[in-house]
Amino acid sequence: MKLYYITLNNSDEARHIGRALLEQKLAVCVNWFPITCAYIWKGEITEEPEVVLIVKTQSGYREQIEEVIRQHINYTNFIAEISPTEINNTFLEWLNAEVPLPLKKNYSD
Amino acid sequence: MKLYYITLNNSDEARHIGRALLEQKLAVCVNWFPITCAYIWKGEITEEPEVVLIVKTQSGYREQIEEVIRQHINYTNFIAEISPTEINNTFLEWLNAEVPLPLKKNYSD
Amino acid sequence: MKLYYITLNNSDEARHIGRALLEQKLAVCVNWFPITCAYIWKGEITEEPEVVLIVKTQSGYREQIEEVIRQHINYTNFIAEISPTEINNTFLEWLNAEVPLPLKKNYSD
Repeated sequence: MKLYYITLNNSDEARHIGRALLEQKLAVCVNWFPITCAYIWKGEITEEPEVVLIVKTQSGYREQIEEVIRQHINYTNFIAEISPTEINNTFLEWLNAEVPLPLKKNYSD
Repeated sequence: MKLYYITLNNSDEARHIGRALLEQKLAVCVNWFPITCAYIWKGEITEEPEVVLIVKTQSGYREQIEEVIRQHINYTNFIAEISPTEINNTFLEWLNAEVPLPLKKNYSD
Repeated sequence: MKLYYITLNNSDEARHIGRALLEQKLAVCVNWFPITCAYIWKGEITEEPEVVLIVKTQSGYREQIEEVIRQHINYTNFIAEISPTEINNTFLEWLNAEVPLPLKKNYSD
């Protein structure tokens, strides 16, 4: 089971991307909350409001999740995969009921 | 040392569960903050306000923490154990002063 | 690539420490958001508003980040290093363009 910590520009983006992931069975649950972000780009510091989206899903969907995000935004954001060391059983049962395990890729293709 | 990322329905639950963990010496510090949650259950998407509770404690208390949570709520929530790769020493000294290391279980019982 | 989850007393501290890290090329991006914190100290529980600062940077800067934090605050806080298992490529390109990889320490010194 994986968590993704994703930064986005605003809550509308988080809602649309989060719902797209749920609808496409790429996540069982998403959380989002507002933050302040400061970053450096070509040596200059910018500070602005952003939103963090946390995605909870099966292992193996990272590329598909990135693809959904790319369909919604066109700027460079942050998509970090976090691998919890334990998860409660009742959540895993819920996850397994809603999100199928990904099909194994044929890497010889 | 472990972190737990726990979702709950509201701040009152986070406060009560967080304080119960502190009182029972199952955590040295807890943090909580409001989020928006969207999830899928039997194919239907629901969006609602929730709260994340972050618990900081020794390794080895996961089952006891889950038991305290179960005493306070009766719905399926998310309890993810995150294992940091490094922690600052002064925090570890504080943790060790307040929260004893768990007794080893006798697995032959 | 590493994430740091850092607790601080307020947003001003988060902004000053975050900007110092960006200016010193010890981070490419920082996020902060308000939380409620409850902790136990010498057996007594205290609850108060705090702020979480998330720092995104190269591996190998933990000690220098702790040093910057120590220059700004004089209380015991929490600095947890989280090691993501995957990061999106476009973010890594941005990180590599802004934050140099740390020089290897000579441990025989």
